[in-house]
Amino acid sequence: MKQIPVNLKERTYQITIGPDTIQKLAFKSGAHIVTNTTVYELYYKKIHSLLKKQKIKAHWIIIKDGEKYKTLKTVESIYHQLLIQKANRKSILLALGGGVVGDMCGFAAATYLRGIDFIQIPTTLLAQVDSSVGGKTGVDLKEGKNLIGAFYQPKAVIIDTDFLKTLPQREFLCGLAEVIKYGLLWDASFFDLLEKNVGAILALENNILTQIIARSCEIKAEIVSKDEKESNLRALLNLGHTLGHAIETLSGYSKILHGEAISMGMVYAAILSHKLGYLSALEVTRIQKLFTAFGLPTKWPKIATSSYRQAISVDKKSLGEKINYVAIKKIGKTFLLPLSPKEIIKYI
Amino acid sequence: MKQIPVNLKERTYQITIGPDTIQKLAFKSGAHIVTNTTVYELYYKKIHSLLKKQKIKAHWIIIKDGEKYKTLKTVESIYHQLLIQKANRKSILLALGGGVVGDMCGFAAATYLRGIDFIQIPTTLLAQVDSSVGGKTGVDLKEGKNLIGAFYQPKAVIIDTDFLKTLPQREFLCGLAEVIKYGLLWDASFFDLLEKNVGAILALENNILTQIIARSCEIKAEIVSKDEKESNLRALLNLGHTLGHAIETLSGYSKILHGEAISMGMVYAAILSHKLGYLSALEVTRIQKLFTAFGLPTKWPKIATSSYRQAISVDKKSLGEKINYVAIKKIGKTFLLPLSPKEIIKYI
Repeated sequence: MKQIPVNLKERTYQITIGPDTIQKLAFKSGAHIVTNTTVYELYYKKIHSLLKKQKIKAHWIIIKDGEKYKTLKTVESIYHQLLIQKANRKSILLALGGGVVGDMCGFAAATYLRGIDFIQIPTTLLAQVDSSVGGKTGVDLKEGKNLIGAFYQPKAVIIDTDFLKTLPQREFLCGLAEVIKYGLLWDASFFDLLEKNVGAILALENNILTQIIARSCEIKAEIVSKDEKESNLRALLNLGHTLGHAIETLSGYSKILHGEAISMGMVYAAILSHKLGYLSALEVTRIQKLFTAFGLPTKWPKIATSSYRQAISVDKKSLGEKINYVAIKKIGKTFLLPLSPKEIIKYI
Repeated sequence: MKQIPVNLKERTYQITIGPDTIQKLAFKSGAHIVTNTTVYELYYKKIHSLLKKQKIKAHWIIIKDGEKYKTLKTVESIYHQLLIQKANRKSILLALGGGVVGDMCGFAAATYLRGIDFIQIPTTLLAQVDSSVGGKTGVDLKEGKNLIGAFYQPKAVIIDTDFLKTLPQREFLCGLAEVIKYGLLWDASFFDLLEKNVGAILALENNILTQIIARSCEIKAEIVSKDEKESNLRALLNLGHTLGHAIETLSGYSKILHGEAISMGMVYAAILSHKLGYLSALEVTRIQKLFTAFGLPTKWPKIATSSYRQAISVDKKSLGEKINYVAIKKIGKTFLLPLSPKEIIKYI
């Protein structure tokens, strides 16, 4: 088991990582567990008996599974159920699920009665290494992803690697895309470690899982602690996301998963960085090879260039005309490069 | 003209009060003005030429007028218009209108792209002395008022007393209910001042208006600065609101205005405080007389006691069984008294 502190002035919290860490769950008030139908079916019994043993009164709020339900309408249904369950300012929300559950439950916690406490229990690798760290909560609009939300920190994050044993392979790989991202943007030796452990990672070995999740959280926590509100440093976490979000928007959030979209986005960022003279051809190849080794896609969909440009223009990182694009100098070193949407899609 | 600073650590802002202070409006970015149909018709020309003179690009977002439109649906329509107008993280929202516009525009600002700047330009007396100070933003649900929201501070508040010249008398009186509240809960000499200036206030004399708005903002700012997140001190601002909100919920937010509901709530708080042995009969009479002098209602609707009890139970200030009711010790001195909904409605 590993513990990572996230230091944010008045709102510091701990991330606890390892097998069966769900046992560490403890609090005084009644719990309102927001989860989706899939996770509910798999883990209802386990969580129920765990809370019963601790004499915690548990209320369940079950939402439909999928990014397409990450809407204001779903959040509204969470509000109504919280009211029916008489949740008050001392109540605690538990986000039990992937990124969609975490983002929506976090947004509900941030806005119900103008803010109540919540604990993240991410059940997917993607959520464990990404959405449970950094306090970003929110929902999608039809115009794009995460356009509505709030910065709101959880009271604690509990990452139980056992959840990964029931996770579909494709979703596990999507999480790995974010793991690779941390190596690529911040830590060349972590990128090396991933290259050397492809087999053990794909075999879900507990030690390597705990190690790579902990290092990913550490890197994100380090960046977020230094730059709580999204600005220059934190913006580096958007590596692969400018094109990634556009791909998701254009494909309607369903055919291509987030991790797959940002894999394509990162490979494209490597190619663009090379074309602009920042990254060597050798490193582009190394990057492509690692994604391929994990079975992640490296080719983006063939869609009209004008559609890509338009989708990138509504991306929320846009600042007037230019966008702060995350470019790669070398593996483990990235920087912000202001580019117009036209310049970004030049080699698409 | 008067200026009141609101000190909130990293988020300090100024309130500017007086006739024609709208001229002080200044900023660098494009402005997205959220207003309602009524205010738009009255002030479109004035604001438009003002911004044009300063070469500020102005986009208008016009919502329907009334508390019943203070919903997630309206906020969603604001989001969509902001996207159409290409509002980005550097854009500024202007809340031009009463409390409904201010609360919703503030909530939209708090949540659009996870938070952008906004300036409050309250056009009703109620919004000027209440909702523009304290950072409370949000919307109603069918179950009750302000159940959803966020604490989010404006960059500045501009209070132009000239707006009050076009305000319907009934709405002006509703604002006075909040003004009386500040005297009643915090400052006996301010209560005296109001008693002595009933005529001048009702005649909308500029000096006395600037004076009472400034003192109201000062009191609220003092309380909020000492206690930014709602806890013990700030909870005193709920004087008259426990019953007031219940009255609004039960009457469907339309027949009885907020200021009228809290007038009833404050008179009831005086009576209950007297019955419980805290407030003298003489002061109860003085309180009733001042509300009557301003033409504000002092009798609450005849509704089944059980309905009142139920409506009070979902009030968001509830903490388990007991509610922190704001009781009156004497004019200018209030305190929190934990009471059950049953105890609260005993003398209704």
